[in-house]
Amino acid sequence: MTLRHRAMLLAALIATPVFAADPPAATPSAATPSAVVAQAPAAAWRAIPAEELLVMTIEGGKRVVIQLAPAFAPRHVGNIQALARAQWWDGTSINRVQDNYVVQWGDVTEKKPLPPGLSPTSPADYAVPLANRRLAVTPLPHADAYAPATGFVAGWPVAMDGAAAWLPHCYGFVGVGRSMSPDAGTGAELYAVIGHAPRQLDRNIAVVGRVIDGMAHLSSLPRGTGELGFYTAQEHKAPVLSVRLASALPEAERPRFEMMDTASPSFAAYLRLRANRRDDFYDRPAGGVDLCNAPVPVRATPSGP
Amino acid sequence: MTLRHRAMLLAALIATPVFAADPPAATPSAATPSAVVAQAPAAAWRAIPAEELLVMTIEGGKRVVIQLAPAFAPRHVGNIQALARAQWWDGTSINRVQDNYVVQWGDVTEKKPLPPGLSPTSPADYAVPLANRRLAVTPLPHADAYAPATGFVAGWPVAMDGAAAWLPHCYGFVGVGRSMSPDAGTGAELYAVIGHAPRQLDRNIAVVGRVIDGMAHLSSLPRGTGELGFYTAQEHKAPVLSVRLASALPEAERPRFEMMDTASPSFAAYLRLRANRRDDFYDRPAGGVDLCNAPVPVRATPSGP
Repeated sequence: MTLRHRAMLLAALIATPVFAADPPAATPSAATPSAVVAQAPAAAWRAIPAEELLVMTIEGGKRVVIQLAPAFAPRHVGNIQALARAQWWDGTSINRVQDNYVVQWGDVTEKKPLPPGLSPTSPADYAVPLANRRLAVTPLPHADAYAPATGFVAGWPVAMDGAAAWLPHCYGFVGVGRSMSPDAGTGAELYAVIGHAPRQLDRNIAVVGRVIDGMAHLSSLPRGTGELGFYTAQEHKAPVLSVRLASALPEAERPRFEMMDTASPSFAAYLRLRANRRDDFYDRPAGGVDLCNAPVPVRATPSGP
Repeated sequence: MTLRHRAMLLAALIATPVFAADPPAATPSAATPSAVVAQAPAAAWRAIPAEELLVMTIEGGKRVVIQLAPAFAPRHVGNIQALARAQWWDGTSINRVQDNYVVQWGDVTEKKPLPPGLSPTSPADYAVPLANRRLAVTPLPHADAYAPATGFVAGWPVAMDGAAAWLPHCYGFVGVGRSMSPDAGTGAELYAVIGHAPRQLDRNIAVVGRVIDGMAHLSSLPRGTGELGFYTAQEHKAPVLSVRLASALPEAERPRFEMMDTASPSFAAYLRLRANRRDDFYDRPAGGVDLCNAPVPVRATPSGP
């Protein structure tokens, strides 16, 4: 199965309900979110720049691909790109896995020297002031417990108030570990959400991207038995073999992904169906969907020249 | 560490933010949800009846404890108790693990005869008509994308409209797999949510309980590579060694748990702090919390006479 087919199948799975019996083959029908994704025209997709793809390889050669969000956290993302270019994460490890919360990786000794040229970070990366720019927002017209408004901007889910927009801590989203304020974290210590969205962290920590491939390699790791899910000295910390920007990989090894244009008619149809499932399984459409339960469709495209 | 201490520590962990540096010891302070739980008086706790605890042991002797919700899904829960008494699940397996969705277990052949005396189930178990009973509701005063109102009833989170209340598909919640309607499932095929709450399933399928101990044994299982995360013939289906009601276990082996009284002042304080974190890490309290991000505190109490 090619990456592209796998990505399309995954999109289908994500949108499919629970069956006791053998699942029917996911036959596209414009009545399901997965069918809308499968049938979206080329014009509904946007290539993700190779400079914004972080390729992490962990023990066993398992690959995790993270899409970075420079428009939302430019200082932290700049540092993360510099750390990847310096191959700084190579030889570090996954140090914390807390159930229904986060997987966290970085230098367990907290003594590894950082490469020169990192920028100071700032809580300014926690949210984007709306005054700074005219954001084209696709609104999500459903209530949210954490923000006055939610929607999608340039392929990303956002929560908003009158003053700013910020990335939410949805499943698979990646943030920058930090100690107590005012330190905002360098970008060297990263975590990914592996449970129900801990939205209480929004605007208290920098969200820098999302896992778009290989998420199961992180979410199925053994949970740590120490406080906060940190692995204890006796437990096995999965090695991080390498972290590279896709742009630094040879053409033939470079993963390529596209995300759905959140201003496209296809995405509007996808959102409507995520909020009101029409497939046969659903007798009672929800009439709503929350910001973290309508993941922006992403698909792999063939690698190599 | 005793079960009770572990449960209290877990409660502390669940409520603790992400740290890059070594986490501080979880020192109780009335300013955190975990401290409220740790300091709650005995009067704030309610014992969970042994008839409502399902003890599942899977490969490796790993124990998963599920609290059943007979008040919300009486037909399905009655069947599940009968299936446990008949030891029907012994020798079955975990057959499906779909990332950010569900773990599902039961008879992979779908041919194992069911014990006599199961009752017909019904979609009537999907929600409780408010007209039927006067429910004492502790409201959750924050917006919800899926329902006009949410709150807590008798230790359970509920979503509500003018006519009914129903259990949401939160992380760790357990439902009954079914095929297409009108079949509502017997109760023999069960699943647990291992990702962001798939609330679109609410009122389309029976929610019968929640995992209150050993959740990580399910959530860290390898994801299946077949459609919908079903394991393929080549993949290892973790055996279900036994499923028993706690009431059927010898006194000394019987797990005992208490849940917080959701009408207690302690729970009200817990909810306020889940919505507005006051610990030092949080510079910006959220001002809200969603129904699935305020899990009802549960603690183990010493087993045996």
